[in-house]
Amino acid sequence: MIIDCHGHYTTAPKGLQTYRDAQIAALKDPSHAPSKGKLNISDDQIRESLENAQVKFQRERGTDLTIFSPRASAMAHHIGDATTSLHWSQHCNDLIHRACSLYPSNFVGVCQLPQSPGVPPANSIEELERCVKELGFIGCNLNPDPSGGHWTAPPLTDRYWYPFYEKMVELDVPAMVHVSSSCNPNFHATGAHYINADTTAFMQFLTGDLFRDFPTIRFVIPHGGGAVPFHWGRYRGLAQDMKRPLLPDLMRNNIFFDTCVYHLPGMELLLKVVPLDNILFGSEMVGAVRGIDPETGHYYDDTKRYLEALPLSEEQRYKLFEGNTRKVYPRIATTLAGLEGSELRTGDHR
Amino acid sequence: MIIDCHGHYTTAPKGLQTYRDAQIAALKDPSHAPSKGKLNISDDQIRESLENAQVKFQRERGTDLTIFSPRASAMAHHIGDATTSLHWSQHCNDLIHRACSLYPSNFVGVCQLPQSPGVPPANSIEELERCVKELGFIGCNLNPDPSGGHWTAPPLTDRYWYPFYEKMVELDVPAMVHVSSSCNPNFHATGAHYINADTTAFMQFLTGDLFRDFPTIRFVIPHGGGAVPFHWGRYRGLAQDMKRPLLPDLMRNNIFFDTCVYHLPGMELLLKVVPLDNILFGSEMVGAVRGIDPETGHYYDDTKRYLEALPLSEEQRYKLFEGNTRKVYPRIATTLAGLEGSELRTGDHR
Repeated sequence: MIIDCHGHYTTAPKGLQTYRDAQIAALKDPSHAPSKGKLNISDDQIRESLENAQVKFQRERGTDLTIFSPRASAMAHHIGDATTSLHWSQHCNDLIHRACSLYPSNFVGVCQLPQSPGVPPANSIEELERCVKELGFIGCNLNPDPSGGHWTAPPLTDRYWYPFYEKMVELDVPAMVHVSSSCNPNFHATGAHYINADTTAFMQFLTGDLFRDFPTIRFVIPHGGGAVPFHWGRYRGLAQDMKRPLLPDLMRNNIFFDTCVYHLPGMELLLKVVPLDNILFGSEMVGAVRGIDPETGHYYDDTKRYLEALPLSEEQRYKLFEGNTRKVYPRIATTLAGLEGSELRTGDHR
Repeated sequence: MIIDCHGHYTTAPKGLQTYRDAQIAALKDPSHAPSKGKLNISDDQIRESLENAQVKFQRERGTDLTIFSPRASAMAHHIGDATTSLHWSQHCNDLIHRACSLYPSNFVGVCQLPQSPGVPPANSIEELERCVKELGFIGCNLNPDPSGGHWTAPPLTDRYWYPFYEKMVELDVPAMVHVSSSCNPNFHATGAHYINADTTAFMQFLTGDLFRDFPTIRFVIPHGGGAVPFHWGRYRGLAQDMKRPLLPDLMRNNIFFDTCVYHLPGMELLLKVVPLDNILFGSEMVGAVRGIDPETGHYYDDTKRYLEALPLSEEQRYKLFEGNTRKVYPRIATTLAGLEGSELRTGDHR
């Protein structure tokens, strides 16, 4: 079983963008009462959007299940207000649920949260509960910067976030720390803002005492942990100078990096320095980089190939591709048990 | 000759902080007319502060000349206004000049700029000219975010910065892109803000057309280029998707990374992916990380050791430790010629 912990629905039918455009246009009319409205997307459109992209790539690359969430760059929590964000998030999450229901052996859901600048994170609890309890989702994407590149929220280690964390712990779901698009012209979204947020979150965790208060909470820092593995010595040294825990101890049960690193030397470094128990296979497919690397002839984001080029034991392979992800997203067990049941019934064993 | 392109006067005598504390205190009194004031620091204090730190480490590590600038985290351009920043910068630069004059074979100066949020970069031209023409400095540190973590200035590729760039080109001096301390609680200075700024600047250069307008301008992105080498495949792929130049072509004459990467696997990756002609030896000593790595028994920031552990040809060594730096900082030739002259006179050859 090969589980990709990081996939976004970046190929959603255009009805989704049509909805969003109308929602944003309505914001300009102050007399217009916000209404949730409807998505006009058929099951066939969903099938087509997935068959030609994520599902095709799963087959071609030999991956099984993708932990699937709404397009991260489109969350854009900085647009409108909490109601805008709630309606948009509910639609995006419902669409993920439909995709997962149509392809139950290909996708399991992770939700977008209805965050909004200045609005307390507790406001996202209800949607998290709905997604986990009613839609069978197994985690969430938490945006540390709902302002979209202005970084106006308190650090992730601040008590400001605690009510939301309490619900995460209660539901036993992790959060991937994932920013959205940037409305600050300094930050290119996928080339700067995403990677900066990863690095920033790690340093917040390193300097804060969050895991003393929430010993079982789990965060996935995507994109291979931002700059952290490349500067592993810097972070080890900073932790040492500040008398903070050793990095493997800091990360052990609480911080995990995915493998969204799009070249072999980077992946090699990631595996060399970061404890293997804290790395989850992920590809961000279809995501930030869509091209084929002329140096290899393969998609940049076919991260499984880089891992396969490294000398890994069977145990290490199991952890990277399945075991660690089961540990971080325990609710995936229900999904997987359901799949085994249905495969037994249909005889569709792999 | 081994030239360290990245050293800050982080060990300045306490008279410097006394001055700064008084300057900041005076800001709170609106009736107080800002005055430049004086630094109360003796030559002996400067000698002592260097002999026990930078000069000692140069001897121990076998490096020769350090390109030396004021403490980056103390630039704090977000404090006060343009006048505050001008007075502070002039004092810091004068102090660097005194250090360089006392140790002409150990240090050559790079200046801090009197930047201030919302103040046009042209305002820094006069201090740059003073430092280059009167004090013999060979470059500057340019802060892409004078707001200290709020990122309110336009990107480095914006015409906003052009008047300053024109002066850099005229004087033939490069800028190290270097932020200062962060007044945004999200960003730890040396663990997040510095690295994020490096990554951000690279992506700005990648998406902009700055080098079409300034084909000879040169920027050093410190800390090994932030997250860029680790995510080299991501940046190659993003450039490809956006039909931007190949990364070696983008960087060739304009973008250079230093070697402030504090562990061997990171350094190995840097040398593996980034063109060697675009890497300058640097250590950031005495800087962000001050401890000794228990795994090696050596200082984390003794970056020369990592380079020496890699298989480099004589030509590669020359480029990293001297040749590339001569190319990026051409005014260093005057410094070096002066040294050779004095060494010839004193017979103090190495």
